[in-house]
Amino acid sequence: MSAVETEDQEYDVYSSQCPSRPTLDHITGRWGMLALGALADGPMRFNALARRVEGVSQKMLAQALHALEHDGLILRDVQTTNRLHVEYSLTPLGRELAGKVLELIGLLEHRMPDILAARERADSVR
Amino acid sequence: MSAVETEDQEYDVYSSQCPSRPTLDHITGRWGMLALGALADGPMRFNALARRVEGVSQKMLAQALHALEHDGLILRDVQTTNRLHVEYSLTPLGRELAGKVLELIGLLEHRMPDILAARERADSVR
Repeated sequence: MSAVETEDQEYDVYSSQCPSRPTLDHITGRWGMLALGALADGPMRFNALARRVEGVSQKMLAQALHALEHDGLILRDVQTTNRLHVEYSLTPLGRELAGKVLELIGLLEHRMPDILAARERADSVR
Repeated sequence: MSAVETEDQEYDVYSSQCPSRPTLDHITGRWGMLALGALADGPMRFNALARRVEGVSQKMLAQALHALEHDGLILRDVQTTNRLHVEYSLTPLGRELAGKVLELIGLLEHRMPDILAARERADSVR
């Protein structure tokens, strides 16, 4: 137990030099987070992902996917059966992190009425 | 139960027009997420927060805090006992979301050895 705790203490996202910072950006950037969440439903092709994550540009989605692939969170599988077919899926590690991402997204969506009420209160005071 | 489910379906972060999108950005932007996580330890003054969230500029931190305050997730408490003293703390709603943020951060820090190994594998293939 203490070995695991010690290992965890090596990484600290609050520390600006920690290598966990770039991955924090990849999984919590808007597009990375939505791509992770979308892929939790199952493997998807690039265009399907681009439709699911509304508003993302092809360039931003490709960047987000590449960063997540580099971190070992998603797999890019190129199949050449009939024609070129590129499919993205979560690795076991990506599935673990996507689980937490989905919990956060779920809570956010669930609490939106409270958040909207807070925004209205704040705007009415101005 | 079904009323809650219906209510949740009104909000969908994958939809580009959903009002949950801006809040997703506030809580998952690097600085917003780290500020939420830091405030989970208790109320903090601006300068203490700026030290805790290493690498953040005063301007970026102020922006992140303002957005989270506008969403009703943090409180900005101005006290004028001896001298001006501004303290930030989580609202109950902010504490709820910060809980999920901390779980995500904790898992990320815990899995960093695997992520670093994946990065090395990816770089060695290039």
